[in-house]
Amino acid sequence: MRILILGGDGYLGWPTAMRFSAAGHEVSVVDNFSRRRWHTQHSTDSLTPIGSLADRIEAWKEVSGREIQTFVGSIEDGKFLDRVIAETVPETVIHYGEQPSAPYSMKSRATAVETQYTNVIGTLNLLFSMRDCVPDCHLVKLGTMGEYGTPNIDIEEGFIEIEHKGRKDTLPFPKMPGSLYHLSKVHDSHNIHFACRIWGLRATDLNQGVVYGIESDESAADERLITRFDYDEYFGTVLNRFCVQAVIGHPLTVYGEGGQTRGFLNIRDTLQCVELAASNPAELGEFRVFNQFTEQFSVAELAELVKRSGGELGYEVEVNSYPNPRIEAEHHYYNAANTKLIDLGLKPHYLGEELVRSMLKTIERYKGRVIERAILPRTRWKPGELEGAFERSEAVRREP
Amino acid sequence: MRILILGGDGYLGWPTAMRFSAAGHEVSVVDNFSRRRWHTQHSTDSLTPIGSLADRIEAWKEVSGREIQTFVGSIEDGKFLDRVIAETVPETVIHYGEQPSAPYSMKSRATAVETQYTNVIGTLNLLFSMRDCVPDCHLVKLGTMGEYGTPNIDIEEGFIEIEHKGRKDTLPFPKMPGSLYHLSKVHDSHNIHFACRIWGLRATDLNQGVVYGIESDESAADERLITRFDYDEYFGTVLNRFCVQAVIGHPLTVYGEGGQTRGFLNIRDTLQCVELAASNPAELGEFRVFNQFTEQFSVAELAELVKRSGGELGYEVEVNSYPNPRIEAEHHYYNAANTKLIDLGLKPHYLGEELVRSMLKTIERYKGRVIERAILPRTRWKPGELEGAFERSEAVRREP
Repeated sequence: MRILILGGDGYLGWPTAMRFSAAGHEVSVVDNFSRRRWHTQHSTDSLTPIGSLADRIEAWKEVSGREIQTFVGSIEDGKFLDRVIAETVPETVIHYGEQPSAPYSMKSRATAVETQYTNVIGTLNLLFSMRDCVPDCHLVKLGTMGEYGTPNIDIEEGFIEIEHKGRKDTLPFPKMPGSLYHLSKVHDSHNIHFACRIWGLRATDLNQGVVYGIESDESAADERLITRFDYDEYFGTVLNRFCVQAVIGHPLTVYGEGGQTRGFLNIRDTLQCVELAASNPAELGEFRVFNQFTEQFSVAELAELVKRSGGELGYEVEVNSYPNPRIEAEHHYYNAANTKLIDLGLKPHYLGEELVRSMLKTIERYKGRVIERAILPRTRWKPGELEGAFERSEAVRREP
Repeated sequence: MRILILGGDGYLGWPTAMRFSAAGHEVSVVDNFSRRRWHTQHSTDSLTPIGSLADRIEAWKEVSGREIQTFVGSIEDGKFLDRVIAETVPETVIHYGEQPSAPYSMKSRATAVETQYTNVIGTLNLLFSMRDCVPDCHLVKLGTMGEYGTPNIDIEEGFIEIEHKGRKDTLPFPKMPGSLYHLSKVHDSHNIHFACRIWGLRATDLNQGVVYGIESDESAADERLITRFDYDEYFGTVLNRFCVQAVIGHPLTVYGEGGQTRGFLNIRDTLQCVELAASNPAELGEFRVFNQFTEQFSVAELAELVKRSGGELGYEVEVNSYPNPRIEAEHHYYNAANTKLIDLGLKPHYLGEELVRSMLKTIERYKGRVIERAILPRTRWKPGELEGAFERSEAVRREP
């Protein structure tokens, strides 16, 4: 299969590229290196010492004997994207090419506009390129479970049957997302749904939970193939951040009471899910939504798990409650459906102490690279609130 | 009250500015003259010979003795908008400042991107300006009934109580809009809702039906104060277009079977609704949605009404079915709630033959300005489909 991966230099994009390449597909990747640029701007970096995309592709060729084609540019540039699509004629496009951070989107007006522009206009350009050049191609789009927010009813997979005043319809599940980033994905979902309804495109919207983990089969084969691992406030996801904090002896930064419950999955399962979606494509004109997570946890449960697992390795892990920089419910109902990928054959790697211990050991190897300044959140969902609160809670912690 | 009107040079924006000014409010308007530019690009124009914004403001001062302040610029430019907000310190912002045409948004990738960029980023900029400069200000945003699409259940005003698997929640009404323009308004609604939830802003989202009519009390007072009246495929709304067609002897262009049912309202009622929303502001943190229309009609019903009313004035009005350039259901359930504005005191001007006759007479006055080339739709929702179909149906019509 000819596969085009947008955002192929990223945390998930790079392992995805290797996975499809290993399976014998013809893989091309697009990236504009935004993530690397954003890190440079904030003086932060991946914990893992990743090579340049070109170096990793060369290493991959050496290790596997397989070639991955690269295109450097932005999908916000419609003409660039048209050229890529015309040259690669993909049968599947896997779209990770977006600004993926909620805190980054809430940092300032400039980053909010950047996020919605990059994500919404990039995806809109893609829909036009597909319509005009490869209308049969299957779009596999990375969305997020965060699109749904935390409604007081069960979350279904994209659509819900509503009975209202004696009539019935199956409609898009109503969305109440919690950041301007999550909103950009809601906008994408609506635009993609439209393109399927009106132009007859086919798409799978993967509403992904929070991803954790470092290694995939391919990346573990050679250190030069490792993927990035972010732990900073913008690009680090919660379990990954907790593991780094445990290793460097920083208290785990639980926001508020830690009752926030979300769906989670192992990075290996992201690869499985994307493979399952790609090899079981949507029908022409179909917009389908899969909730892509394997388990639900509260933040406090994750903190306890890391504390326990770290303890076994001799780390003394403290769990601290920090003032919540986000505006979100800390106690809420949460029950989301996730059977569609299981029905397609997903075999989950469930989270346990063993996995966390293995993450801690990998992190231990790169411990010297941790930039401690990047640990604490500085972005507030509501500016002006909590001013200095973090610094105060740090001071309290250090006083004993 | 200090009122800032975005898009104050437009079909609705200009009469709204005069209305609030007449009522003694301190009115400022912002416009970047996009609509005039789009007309220039397409070699089309308003049927009514409108003056420049500056001329109209001068005429208004002469007629009413009242001043309206003008700012020329784009709300996509956050810094410009910040300056306007800081200078005017509005208590109410009335936001018409968007690309308002569905066909224009479907014309090409460039116009689709322009539409979503202009509308989504412009509104996002506005939310940040309000948050940082006038957090108590009430945003009155013009949305559209088209955000809902045509679901098989009753359309409620913005939110719906859903009972699902034994639990209940009141959530945003699910949206299935029919064009990339309508989608931009859905994106806006989600972003504004978020700003109210997270930042505590207050907003009223007016999901407006299709507006018809030419005159308001203020614009009728002096010809120099007339508002624009569009009848072209991009910016003309259906009843206005039918009236122009009747006057120039062109068959009414019913798309398909004309069973498309929508909510409609008189331009005078738009002004009433906006006034009611402004003088009964939402609470801080509240995002409320009013469905702003007074009656539902099918397109075929409107065509018959115009035919009948025209007949009484001696026009021989033909009604023709044209291949539908849009992708939409031509027969569907449609029943939308619209009680909230009535509860606030809206007194509708219902549509009848008298109103249509008065529109026809006004149009008759400007008949010589009609550009016939602008009558037939050229934009297809699905390009490639219906190629030449319009020209064929025109040819058939002209043969006998």
